[in-house]
Amino acid sequence: MSTTDADQMPINVGQVEGGSVTFPAWAADTEKPKGQPRNPDPVHDRIGFAVLSLGRLSLEEILPALAQCKHARLTALVSGTPEKLAAVGAQYGVSAEHLYSYDDFDRIADDPDVQIVYVVAPNALHEGFVRRAAAAGKHVLCEKPMAVDVASAQAIIEACEAAGRLLMIAYRSRFQPHMREAIRIAQSGELGQIKLINALNLQNQGDPAQWRHDHTLAGGGSLPDVGLYCLTIARAIAGEEPMGVSALITSPADDRRFDSVEDQVSFTLRFPSGPVATCVTGYDAHKLSRLIISLQHGWIELENAFDYVGQRMRVARRVGDREQISEIVIKEENQFMLEMDEFAVWIRDGSGPSASGREGLQDHRVMEAIYKAAREQKTVSLT
Amino acid sequence: MSTTDADQMPINVGQVEGGSVTFPAWAADTEKPKGQPRNPDPVHDRIGFAVLSLGRLSLEEILPALAQCKHARLTALVSGTPEKLAAVGAQYGVSAEHLYSYDDFDRIADDPDVQIVYVVAPNALHEGFVRRAAAAGKHVLCEKPMAVDVASAQAIIEACEAAGRLLMIAYRSRFQPHMREAIRIAQSGELGQIKLINALNLQNQGDPAQWRHDHTLAGGGSLPDVGLYCLTIARAIAGEEPMGVSALITSPADDRRFDSVEDQVSFTLRFPSGPVATCVTGYDAHKLSRLIISLQHGWIELENAFDYVGQRMRVARRVGDREQISEIVIKEENQFMLEMDEFAVWIRDGSGPSASGREGLQDHRVMEAIYKAAREQKTVSLT
Amino acid sequence: MSTTDADQMPINVGQVEGGSVTFPAWAADTEKPKGQPRNPDPVHDRIGFAVLSLGRLSLEEILPALAQCKHARLTALVSGTPEKLAAVGAQYGVSAEHLYSYDDFDRIADDPDVQIVYVVAPNALHEGFVRRAAAAGKHVLCEKPMAVDVASAQAIIEACEAAGRLLMIAYRSRFQPHMREAIRIAQSGELGQIKLINALNLQNQGDPAQWRHDHTLAGGGSLPDVGLYCLTIARAIAGEEPMGVSALITSPADDRRFDSVEDQVSFTLRFPSGPVATCVTGYDAHKLSRLIISLQHGWIELENAFDYVGQRMRVARRVGDREQISEIVIKEENQFMLEMDEFAVWIRDGSGPSASGREGLQDHRVMEAIYKAAREQKTVSLT
Amino acid sequence: MSTTDADQMPINVGQVEGGSVTFPAWAADTEKPKGQPRNPDPVHDRIGFAVLSLGRLSLEEILPALAQCKHARLTALVSGTPEKLAAVGAQYGVSAEHLYSYDDFDRIADDPDVQIVYVVAPNALHEGFVRRAAAAGKHVLCEKPMAVDVASAQAIIEACEAAGRLLMIAYRSRFQPHMREAIRIAQSGELGQIKLINALNLQNQGDPAQWRHDHTLAGGGSLPDVGLYCLTIARAIAGEEPMGVSALITSPADDRRFDSVEDQVSFTLRFPSGPVATCVTGYDAHKLSRLIISLQHGWIELENAFDYVGQRMRVARRVGDREQISEIVIKEENQFMLEMDEFAVWIRDGSGPSASGREGLQDHRVMEAIYKAAREQKTVSLT
Repeated sequence: MSTTDADQMPINVGQVEGGSVTFPAWAADTEKPKGQPRNPDPVHDRIGFAVLSLGRLSLEEILPALAQCKHARLTALVSGTPEKLAAVGAQYGVSAEHLYSYDDFDRIADDPDVQIVYVVAPNALHEGFVRRAAAAGKHVLCEKPMAVDVASAQAIIEACEAAGRLLMIAYRSRFQPHMREAIRIAQSGELGQIKLINALNLQNQGDPAQWRHDHTLAGGGSLPDVGLYCLTIARAIAGEEPMGVSALITSPADDRRFDSVEDQVSFTLRFPSGPVATCVTGYDAHKLSRLIISLQHGWIELENAFDYVGQRMRVARRVGDREQISEIVIKEENQFMLEMDEFAVWIRDGSGPSASGREGLQDHRVMEAIYKAAREQKTVSLT
Repeated sequence: MSTTDADQMPINVGQVEGGSVTFPAWAADTEKPKGQPRNPDPVHDRIGFAVLSLGRLSLEEILPALAQCKHARLTALVSGTPEKLAAVGAQYGVSAEHLYSYDDFDRIADDPDVQIVYVVAPNALHEGFVRRAAAAGKHVLCEKPMAVDVASAQAIIEACEAAGRLLMIAYRSRFQPHMREAIRIAQSGELGQIKLINALNLQNQGDPAQWRHDHTLAGGGSLPDVGLYCLTIARAIAGEEPMGVSALITSPADDRRFDSVEDQVSFTLRFPSGPVATCVTGYDAHKLSRLIISLQHGWIELENAFDYVGQRMRVARRVGDREQISEIVIKEENQFMLEMDEFAVWIRDGSGPSASGREGLQDHRVMEAIYKAAREQKTVSLT
Repeated sequence: MSTTDADQMPINVGQVEGGSVTFPAWAADTEKPKGQPRNPDPVHDRIGFAVLSLGRLSLEEILPALAQCKHARLTALVSGTPEKLAAVGAQYGVSAEHLYSYDDFDRIADDPDVQIVYVVAPNALHEGFVRRAAAAGKHVLCEKPMAVDVASAQAIIEACEAAGRLLMIAYRSRFQPHMREAIRIAQSGELGQIKLINALNLQNQGDPAQWRHDHTLAGGGSLPDVGLYCLTIARAIAGEEPMGVSALITSPADDRRFDSVEDQVSFTLRFPSGPVATCVTGYDAHKLSRLIISLQHGWIELENAFDYVGQRMRVARRVGDREQISEIVIKEENQFMLEMDEFAVWIRDGSGPSASGREGLQDHRVMEAIYKAAREQKTVSLT
Repeated sequence: MSTTDADQMPINVGQVEGGSVTFPAWAADTEKPKGQPRNPDPVHDRIGFAVLSLGRLSLEEILPALAQCKHARLTALVSGTPEKLAAVGAQYGVSAEHLYSYDDFDRIADDPDVQIVYVVAPNALHEGFVRRAAAAGKHVLCEKPMAVDVASAQAIIEACEAAGRLLMIAYRSRFQPHMREAIRIAQSGELGQIKLINALNLQNQGDPAQWRHDHTLAGGGSLPDVGLYCLTIARAIAGEEPMGVSALITSPADDRRFDSVEDQVSFTLRFPSGPVATCVTGYDAHKLSRLIISLQHGWIELENAFDYVGQRMRVARRVGDREQISEIVIKEENQFMLEMDEFAVWIRDGSGPSASGREGLQDHRVMEAIYKAAREQKTVSLT
């Protein structure tokens, strides 16, 4: 068969319209629809991101995720370490004029390829970098926790508002497809009212010298780091604000990891319309990340709920005269990709963010109440 | 082949010794050992049980379980409903002289076939029936919760001690094979220290007129009924007594089921050597029964943890450079059978009970503290 | 609270009617219905079983199962080993006049407490014992495989017909609740037509001296023992008879276990209306028992499909725009209990058997074709 | 905290060496090692790929996968549809001088940015395009099935050899991490010898007009398309070549999808050292993709074995006196990325391919034997 005749063959070449390619379905109707190719925006139409600080999170997750975005692309890097800046620039094809040190970062104001600065640095530095990015006229995606305390979170919001720039908090789990479906089902009423949100997120930290164990830099221990996911997701599921909180904090004695930050935090939130959230986070336990939502007529479980990958969702309910526990098969998608793409779309279309600065501020308020409740051993009111 | 020659054939007929039959293994060494036949004691050597009250639990679970016991057998029935007594007596082959009404129950003192009375009646009646059974010279297996408050639990213990009779509380989950293995692994140290015991036990009650929704008869709502399993198992796993407790009780308004008893109880226990237990029970949620134990180097999960059947255990840990989540396959065994057989062996051999009256009393003490902590919205000390 | 007043309390005592006790539902409508107590027939109304031969299967499975029956009970034992007969008689309360040796077994004709003889002895002895049981006027439940070849299977059927006695084959998997539901769904059409039945049943045998490795006694190796379940269930699922079969038999050289019987058998059945069954059985592999049914619009999987316990069923299909894999939670029930109870009901009500002698005979015919196909290395027609 | 001082803080900035960045572990030793960032090669050092034909597979899988490669990058596109070429070129940033039609494809000889042509077009066109790519001096990655018959497969190999160019077949499942681990365990001997490889790969096709249902273009139906994975993986697991094959082909009548190609193929392979493979593929069944390997001392199961994503691996074996079924948690990685990166490394380092043209040719030989065995209804020898 002549290959030059290939385009005369009865092969479906798909449709091209508005720069996108689509194809008819190849599978029978009995199968899950396969959807269409991703069709990324033309490279130069995508929103440009500068990634600020080149630690593990940036190199392992954020930079690879940008390569999967449809609406966003990497256009600049910012780091305090020159050799790293050069190496990573080469790896990702960012040319020298888009590489910034912390000192000359403010020059980014003149870089037309950068619309958003993704601030990834240690928690205590967020406020300073957000101020500088906003002052440079850039929108800001700020890693979680957005700050080290309520006052700093408030200052971050005000800085962006003053500069007229958009602010989003990188609560990646809020973009995770299984999580979104879990929240949708829980709020749909199809399983009755939500009774309990049980969220666990624990991990086992090694080196006590890492910055996450320095209260000055981290603002706290397991709570603002991994426990924050339990909190922010519990609020997202309940769809309302907690009215009271109790908490218990326990840290092993004589463990250098916990000289300045806490190990394990158990906290209970009471929501106005009825739901209760029981959450536990910790820094001295084997990796465990689980969400269970108990409702009147069923339950929803998410394994590896707050992890980068590996989510698995089961929903239990009565079907006919039998109990049925269904795994809902959802394709995993990179959470960082989704959040960066959403920010890009927000800039273009004005479709509000799933994780605003207000969400981040409210989480800091609740975390302060958690610390207070643990200290005073009594329920703290949040109303 | 002549069937009369069958016993001359090269068929392994097993070993008979001391009334028990055993066989050599038929499977290769690569397979899980199959063990030996159950070899029940000769019928007339088994310890005789009277089952007191013929409600759902007795008919659905306890009487069928007795038929599976090796060391125990059903020898008498006690009920306040004559037709039921006659019908069930016929079903299980208990002859008329071993059928007792509540009025003439004390005659059981003269029934030599009864060694143990299994008191199954509503909670508020436990104390009275235990007193009468002990006074009649019988040992007592008392359903959980053993009483409606601490004082009554104490009285039950004292009545049995005064009569010189043994007392056991029917905490069936403490006998469940998966649960026993979970406790064994947790306490073995092979996964490091226990950090968190997360126990959920919820169900959705129907008819508000049933006795479990009458505080006078039940002594409480979900807590003493199904939440008690979370509590008693948390104590069993920790292997020590909680030093403090906080709690939150929430009940929907305008729901007749919760006119006199509580719906949902979340409580947190702090144990002296470090572990924390976060437990939730409720009466207005779809069936959910789950135990997760988080340790420093792994986690253990038990699905359907507190149910009659359906337990499934997974253990996660690092193996080599990979995370491994292992299902440990354990044959289910009837929990009621195991607890009744253990009591029978206790009488014979003096090997102490897995669930003494002291355990039941301590659970009542903690439940009182839970109610208090919820009322006062602060941590209650148990030391 | 006075315990003598207990029957005046507002406790629902249930309904007693026709010797059965029933209760109102206690759970909400959102929960799987709990059903009613088992309400066994009065002991002396139950159909009496004699169990013939006291090997592992009888002691580990059949005798305990009889204790769980509603319509059947153990009334006699038959064994070639006097000590075993005495020991087991004591264990199960069978008095001396109902204990039979192989020699005096024919006396059972005069035992009015025995209606059914359950023939459990090695395969080659089935025919002889069935003939004697039928001649004694007893109905027969015959272990699988019913015989060692087609001729003997035919003879067994004729002997029972001649004596006017009922014959059932102990195909326990045909009674297993998950299996019944899998067959029901597969045949309902709700997932389209059946395309493939993939049945695996392998185990690893130890001692080469056991009778199952002696062709004279067993009639074959893995095929008539454990592979028979794949075959009989494939036929049950298809609901029609195979029209052709191909097969491959492989046995390791120099392994005494396979001196006279085969190890592994792979066979493929073609059914007239379209389905294909691919089955594998073996005697030198780690325990594996699995059934997968592939249909046009979904699939059904049964883990531990042919085992005594541990069945787990999942059903996959498209639901909305998602793939859903549902575990259907079904309470396990003892398969031997179900088959013995069904036989008892058959005798009383004439409701035909789920596993007749005709089923057993047809399986022997297909097994002969499997052996032939393997020998000749070509497809053998069964029409 | 001043952000300009950020690089003076006690934050571990990692190591930079040879253009790569590495970090110390942050987690405790009890946790699975997290590894290091991916550190892609500098963009311009990566091997350049031209992707030939822009159908679903290229747009949905291959082009996104290239964006995740460490050693490869997209440098050119080839298509018979000009609008599609322009649209996709813009989406992926391929400039006009690297966009080729089928007519002017031979110009690629002069494109220094292209080292490898990935031939993705319909099966019948592979040979022609491979010849042209090799003649243009490019290495070739050829989609599976590599050809439509043995002769064409042979011609492809010879064309590449004559041109002195490397040839690899895109057997993505051979690169899938779970699959590699399954093969490793199976061959390691730790579970004894392999007894059975049971591989199922079925899907439900829609539109009968698509080219895969045209024998001229596809060379066959389900077998060369999705059944080929069962075959090539069975050979990879066995680690030797099959000596005999039997097969059954069934296709529904009056179904236009099967006018020229087959629906369902069941085939059985016998390997010299003992293992048997039973494989089923089909085009009229709900998506099912499963691999079960049965060994003497354990079994290995891979769910979604041949899919793009969703692999889940369980391994069963005896551990102590218990059966243990372990999920081995392995991070999913894009199979296309892995295969393209491997080819890039092959070019640089000469480390041979996991899927050579010889593998593809041997699979075509076995497929011809499968078709013959089905036609003749007997075992076909392959030795």
